Amino acid sequence: MHIDLHTHILPRTWPDWTARSGYAGWISLAHDAPGCAKGCARMVQSLPGGGFKDFRDVEPNLWDIPTRLHEMDRTNVTVQALSTVPVMFASWASAQHAYDLHRLLNDHLAQVVRSHPDRFVALACVPMQDSDLACAELDRVATISGFRGVQIGTHVNGLNLDAPPVRSIIAHAAKRNLAVFVHPWDMLGGDRLKNFWMPWLVAMPTETTIAIMSTLFGGILDESPNLRICFAHGGGSFPGTLGRIRHGLAARPDLFPPNARDPILDLASETTNTPARFWVDSLTHDPHALRTLLRLFHSSRVALGSDYPFPLGELKPGEMIQQMPDLTPTQRTDLLCNAAKAFLGMP
Amino acid sequence: MHIDLHTHILPRTWPDWTARSGYAGWISLAHDAPGCAKGCARMVQSLPGGGFKDFRDVEPNLWDIPTRLHEMDRTNVTVQALSTVPVMFASWASAQHAYDLHRLLNDHLAQVVRSHPDRFVALACVPMQDSDLACAELDRVATISGFRGVQIGTHVNGLNLDAPPVRSIIAHAAKRNLAVFVHPWDMLGGDRLKNFWMPWLVAMPTETTIAIMSTLFGGILDESPNLRICFAHGGGSFPGTLGRIRHGLAARPDLFPPNARDPILDLASETTNTPARFWVDSLTHDPHALRTLLRLFHSSRVALGSDYPFPLGELKPGEMIQQMPDLTPTQRTDLLCNAAKAFLGMP
Repeated sequence: MHIDLHTHILPRTWPDWTARSGYAGWISLAHDAPGCAKGCARMVQSLPGGGFKDFRDVEPNLWDIPTRLHEMDRTNVTVQALSTVPVMFASWASAQHAYDLHRLLNDHLAQVVRSHPDRFVALACVPMQDSDLACAELDRVATISGFRGVQIGTHVNGLNLDAPPVRSIIAHAAKRNLAVFVHPWDMLGGDRLKNFWMPWLVAMPTETTIAIMSTLFGGILDESPNLRICFAHGGGSFPGTLGRIRHGLAARPDLFPPNARDPILDLASETTNTPARFWVDSLTHDPHALRTLLRLFHSSRVALGSDYPFPLGELKPGEMIQQMPDLTPTQRTDLLCNAAKAFLGMP
Repeated sequence: MHIDLHTHILPRTWPDWTARSGYAGWISLAHDAPGCAKGCARMVQSLPGGGFKDFRDVEPNLWDIPTRLHEMDRTNVTVQALSTVPVMFASWASAQHAYDLHRLLNDHLAQVVRSHPDRFVALACVPMQDSDLACAELDRVATISGFRGVQIGTHVNGLNLDAPPVRSIIAHAAKRNLAVFVHPWDMLGGDRLKNFWMPWLVAMPTETTIAIMSTLFGGILDESPNLRICFAHGGGSFPGTLGRIRHGLAARPDLFPPNARDPILDLASETTNTPARFWVDSLTHDPHALRTLLRLFHSSRVALGSDYPFPLGELKPGEMIQQMPDLTPTQRTDLLCNAAKAFLGMP
């Protein structure tokens, strides 16, 4: 059994949120847009003056369930954890309009999971810019079969995960036994990063590192001892720069909270008395980087994640894990299945 | 012979640049400031309304040469490459005022090197916000014995290294046979990173990655085939996220220049026909991260750098390299001496 923790999905179509809200910035799917390959679509974002800006060309595997199931079968993925595309977070929008959209997206997730409960589980989306509405939606999805957690961004309009309005939502997810999958979005850097796909290749790993720092040193794990939290893209740039971070804590403890502890204690939770609650996905595109993860985390805390169906993801989910000759059978099973099961709280 | 490529120095004192320029923002050293340990000093930055903001407390080893030589002897460092503290880059200031300050700092570097030519070499500073003045100062220091290169930041007021005004200075350094040491400064992220020392621990490694991306994909190496360039802090977060970057290039070549090549070819230059011209320092605080560097770079391209005399640096320069049992004698000699020699063009 292979579980892919990190996959994205959208409905084939949904109402025009620009017309509904009265302002621009919303994403829609333009099917068979000019220049799209046949059967494909373009994600476009409405502009204030009218018209659209291209966001990304996508293929039917983003919305079409038979295509998705076919590709899962072809790549030996038993179960996908489905989450929306992060551009749908819409933290910039009115909370009520984002809430309305997220309920629609969560209803779609619920329907997909209900149609194939043995193949899909769902990670909800919630309007992070409003703690009350976000918690209300967490309460709602917690009662729907198949929802195992929530996907959130690495910050909310500049507030990191340890800012009170954001951390209250994370704590609420933990109370509802919903796992929290943290995916970078609204990447820092602006114009500095306009070339060479740097928002995706440089800023996303940085965003994830900021989110991990905010989680570890912001006391989020201590606040919610039963929280299960997982960071995308192998923890971003955090594992590769951990030496600098640990040395920084040792050199200048005055710049950290009084109770700050060596982060390695929280990562290597299987080998300490710290409750196990911190996961990363395996999406590193580099066997050596995955080995770095396995030096820091027990293999039951590193879960296969492919970023399906996007080209920056692992095109054959799990292929790298299966081809690394130095993994033990236990590690392989952990990475391909057990880590995701534990994070998602699956039986 | 051990060469420490990455050390910082300031004069004990220099004229009041706030009075001289007529505006605030300049750094000065407040010796024996209230709360400083005896003999120590506080780097302070002048404020627009008058008064100062604390920047960093520093010890006599930052300016006092006998102390520095004593500590070098104690830690077996034969030669230090001296560079200013990056906050002195002053790219925000009028170019002429920065130029005046940099000439003063370079004259101080020249004097220190002249007094102990067997123990010190110098990396100059130049006013990067003005290509003409920067190149003029490069021309000047190139004629002064002991100057082996220049230290620059990771960007200049938002312009990355491949922006024409910045790359023209880099190309000029190469023409003058001056090596270019890239040190992160003016870190991105702003308020998002105000906690947990994140400007230093998260933004600095990101800055270095942006600088490496801009160098590799911006065509800087192709423009100056004899350029020698080195990136601080083990290349920041670049080595640990290289899998994602390489996959990004393979997945979306349309987002890169037509001649973009797999970055690994430029890193592993000793094993290809690419001219060897790309170095990193060893400052990773993590033997596993240093091993990652040695998988990507030939050991003659990874040079001991300690960030002396600051606490985020390696307190005993070279200790980690000496204590790693798995390095070959050749690798150790490369790391401790030959890589820096080659980068600095030392006989």
